[in-house]
Amino acid sequence: MHKNQQVILHAIPDGLPVAGDFAEQEAMLPALGAGQLLLETQFLSLDPYMRGQMSGRHMSGALAIGEVLRGETVSRVLQSNDDSFQIGDIVRAFTGWQSHAVIDAGAAMPIGFTDLPPSLALGVLGMPGLTAYAALTRLGSPKTGDTLLVSSAAGTVGATVGQIGRILGCRTVGIAGGPDKCFWLTGPAKFNAAIDYKNEAVRDGIKRTCPAKSAPLGGVDIYYDNVGGDILAAAMENMAHGARVILCGLMDQYNSSTVPAGPNPGLIIKARAHVHGMVVYDHEDARPDMIKKISGWIRSGDFIYHEDVTPGLENAPSAFMRLMRGETFGKVIVAVN
Amino acid sequence: MHKNQQVILHAIPDGLPVAGDFAEQEAMLPALGAGQLLLETQFLSLDPYMRGQMSGRHMSGALAIGEVLRGETVSRVLQSNDDSFQIGDIVRAFTGWQSHAVIDAGAAMPIGFTDLPPSLALGVLGMPGLTAYAALTRLGSPKTGDTLLVSSAAGTVGATVGQIGRILGCRTVGIAGGPDKCFWLTGPAKFNAAIDYKNEAVRDGIKRTCPAKSAPLGGVDIYYDNVGGDILAAAMENMAHGARVILCGLMDQYNSSTVPAGPNPGLIIKARAHVHGMVVYDHEDARPDMIKKISGWIRSGDFIYHEDVTPGLENAPSAFMRLMRGETFGKVIVAVN
Repeated sequence: MHKNQQVILHAIPDGLPVAGDFAEQEAMLPALGAGQLLLETQFLSLDPYMRGQMSGRHMSGALAIGEVLRGETVSRVLQSNDDSFQIGDIVRAFTGWQSHAVIDAGAAMPIGFTDLPPSLALGVLGMPGLTAYAALTRLGSPKTGDTLLVSSAAGTVGATVGQIGRILGCRTVGIAGGPDKCFWLTGPAKFNAAIDYKNEAVRDGIKRTCPAKSAPLGGVDIYYDNVGGDILAAAMENMAHGARVILCGLMDQYNSSTVPAGPNPGLIIKARAHVHGMVVYDHEDARPDMIKKISGWIRSGDFIYHEDVTPGLENAPSAFMRLMRGETFGKVIVAVN
Repeated sequence: MHKNQQVILHAIPDGLPVAGDFAEQEAMLPALGAGQLLLETQFLSLDPYMRGQMSGRHMSGALAIGEVLRGETVSRVLQSNDDSFQIGDIVRAFTGWQSHAVIDAGAAMPIGFTDLPPSLALGVLGMPGLTAYAALTRLGSPKTGDTLLVSSAAGTVGATVGQIGRILGCRTVGIAGGPDKCFWLTGPAKFNAAIDYKNEAVRDGIKRTCPAKSAPLGGVDIYYDNVGGDILAAAMENMAHGARVILCGLMDQYNSSTVPAGPNPGLIIKARAHVHGMVVYDHEDARPDMIKKISGWIRSGDFIYHEDVTPGLENAPSAFMRLMRGETFGKVIVAVN
């Protein structure tokens, strides 16, 4: 019998999560029923939406105190009671913050590729990649020569949006915190420009990197937003005529107990802008196309990625706290087994 | 020589405009140059955007103190130095709040129809009609069975949006102030339901008339906004999955010296909504099609309109003050000559 290490929600965070909001426990695994799989977690994905679950504010539902934290994993099949999976198969599943899991075979998905690191099924070839790909190609209407501005640009989704935009002919500008991330953006990730919001007022940075095309409007044709708050307002004050804004994350308010207002709607009218709300769950049908395209760009060297890997399930809380403080760099993953 | 009566901006309004913000004067008309027309104003259109011009906040530019107030008119040609216009022709032009004008022939446009009242070229067959038609058909993506919510629904644009929506198969709900307007909406204008914001909390009214399709989302598939502020927020809190919001006016802030914030962007994400900024100037190419469609519906009895006609240029300021207080009903027109 395998022992199952788990991380549970111990207290609802007040603002940024702290160590005492989490607890570890060891549980017994249930016996394997018909059509079920025993999985050993290899990699656990840590994502900003988890903060919303902890407060009961995420659309996927609330977590109860004492419940195992949820999350997507890449796992290995240890035992199979289903003909479609063999021992040793690598799958992705929402098995959460634990070392093992017993699940119905229908809840396990193949990762969709074999010649690249399986952890990418949680990053640029997984939900973040799908988010970026579907958002930009289905909602952003990118055209050659468009100026594409991306927030959280050194994060997996942001860096993927920017690189796909560059491959599709856009001029790309990334917003990130600190010189290291900005150097990575304009260096290996081939963004045209970067704005370091820790060292430059974002409004100034946007005007510097996205010059206005015709007064009184600004120079941002597409803005991909992961943060909300003042960065969203600054971007929307600098939209070009017919700009597209894709709203995909609200990092600015995940750790807040109040619901802030948004930018003045007059900005949307003035720029004749199109503002789209994006939820990745609606775009599962684009996953095969996304994997084909992005894995091809990785193989050809057109597209790079950065992973932030923490070893050991017991270190997942501290990695998540770093993610919430904006201190991680690239896809945040816990290497569990 | 014709004397030219004019209404000028005497003071920049502080909040709602008052009589002292306007002044009358009599001016001499210039001599008619080559290629010019002398026009006699028949009907002057009064519109909310004029309030923005008075404060220098409208995209069409600011008015100086002492300047003749701007506006679109339907006028009759009294003299013509251009072969394309004959004495007696009826044209529309931006000749402003005055009884006569001398303009270049190129600035005069035919009204585009002959068998309906010429004042309609300022209303349902003019810019308000074009605003409604282009907004709904180009940005609203109306589908049979959609619930279409319209603010300022007894105004020309709002009533036109709602009636076109009904003709295209939508369920239509109008927001208006007072029982008379609401009775007109659900009676002769054939809206399915109305919300009287003076006698019912708008949030309650929206939930009553636009029942949710799937929790936690609301029941509004298309929202056409003329007002901004709290009504916009209430509508966006009740959007259905994939809702379209068309932002076309900000009545709520025209008389304010501050620029208020907008609804939380999380609402847009949650509903996967599409929010579009609409400026009618971008859609001039749709005017012939709009006139053909709406005049056809008028002739067949499918579409009605309501005009609020004030006789005499000297009464234009008081009519405009009523418009700004939300006390007018239908297209606000001054019958000048």
